Amino acid sequence: MAESRIYTAALIVIGDEILSGRTHDKNIAQVASWLQIQGIRLKEVRVVADDMAAIAEAVNALRARNDYLFTTGGIGPTHDDITVDAIAAALGVDVIVHPEARAILEDYYETRGGLTDARLRMARVPEGASLIPNRYTGAPGIRAENVFIMAGVPQITSGMLDALSGTLEGGAVLLCETVGCWVQESEVADMLRATEKAHETCQIGSYPFWRDGRTGANFVVRSVDAEDLAACCRALAEGLDAMDRPAIPGGI
Amino acid sequence: MAESRIYTAALIVIGDEILSGRTHDKNIAQVASWLQIQGIRLKEVRVVADDMAAIAEAVNALRARNDYLFTTGGIGPTHDDITVDAIAAALGVDVIVHPEARAILEDYYETRGGLTDARLRMARVPEGASLIPNRYTGAPGIRAENVFIMAGVPQITSGMLDALSGTLEGGAVLLCETVGCWVQESEVADMLRATEKAHETCQIGSYPFWRDGRTGANFVVRSVDAEDLAACCRALAEGLDAMDRPAIPGGI
Repeated sequence: MAESRIYTAALIVIGDEILSGRTHDKNIAQVASWLQIQGIRLKEVRVVADDMAAIAEAVNALRARNDYLFTTGGIGPTHDDITVDAIAAALGVDVIVHPEARAILEDYYETRGGLTDARLRMARVPEGASLIPNRYTGAPGIRAENVFIMAGVPQITSGMLDALSGTLEGGAVLLCETVGCWVQESEVADMLRATEKAHETCQIGSYPFWRDGRTGANFVVRSVDAEDLAACCRALAEGLDAMDRPAIPGGI
Repeated sequence: MAESRIYTAALIVIGDEILSGRTHDKNIAQVASWLQIQGIRLKEVRVVADDMAAIAEAVNALRARNDYLFTTGGIGPTHDDITVDAIAAALGVDVIVHPEARAILEDYYETRGGLTDARLRMARVPEGASLIPNRYTGAPGIRAENVFIMAGVPQITSGMLDALSGTLEGGAVLLCETVGCWVQESEVADMLRATEKAHETCQIGSYPFWRDGRTGANFVVRSVDAEDLAACCRALAEGLDAMDRPAIPGGI
């Protein structure tokens, strides 16, 4: 199989409400799943406060070492929405009112009380940025260099991801198969290690659980090579069966 | 009110399964909520891969600038459990088998097939560390300097947090009150900003939503000063009422 370049991304979730425990984040999982399909590896996530310095530090650290950086949160109309300012500062550019974003908001608010100063804040972008459509509430997301600035409300984030689908260059998709087993992972640890070692493109993750009073584990095999992945899953299932611990293809 | 020192913490969630989108993290919210009650501010969360260098880099960055650092994940018996090795490397100490952890595991596995080499991996700790009890499955969590190394399975993490409750010094608890309103946040943005400015110990977060076809927002006011918090919430409710947008105490 031809080698293809690996594309990487990072995600910054911006919001005091996640760090206080008040709101349970839903964006990490949806961005992670979406990136997986685009053939882009999510390497790191950071959750940071609504704080200019914290956002700028994370942006600069992560955008330099990944192909793409995504952010969620802090792009609304209120005083606590400082993401655009923080990212512009990190990029070393000014904040401007984007003419197309302004037109979108004028149109959206025409029948909803008009475009006030607060609402116009949602047309502010780092200079040189382009827009990511928001089909729900008008106010667009923003692409500034390799940074994709998205809303924090999960439904709106989801719409922005849809709008970006297929537009970012990715590499080989990391394929994934799960084999489950009613076993304590510690009983099969040596076999797992040997099986991974014998299939050099594969990584095996072991995820134990307790359900209905029983101990089990799912073994998740990942590889960019479909043949090696299938061979590794077969070897794993045979290894479990040989220990009288029947493998359950697809996981439990 | 007397000033008290602010105690801070960071959290590192370790696991490829979160970054791939396969597993939805449940530990950020539970650690965040628990810290809130201990009077400790969660300043940052990072999700990193099962990778020695990535874990060590995050550990060193975050433990230096926080009072406490918590990690979840990667302390089981299998080959992909590398958290202890990575943290020992970050701290510049050796990994040893902790005698008390070994005794706990010998006891736990006495009726469960005995203490194999794989299971003994769960007694390995950075030299100088102490243990965090695990009432579910024996294998303890670990305290190494200001780093608290916990399990990834949320139920076990929860038990470890219970065991730590009240044992870490904290400062003033950040109090929090919510005022809800069926309003577009952009309509009241100016009033929010002015109300926050008038109550200098308070921060107001604005969290919009759509439910049942209606637009609303919850305004979350945070302060360490109970009196100023109450005054800010009153001012906020009066501001909303004055705009014919009835405030809903406690949030929607």
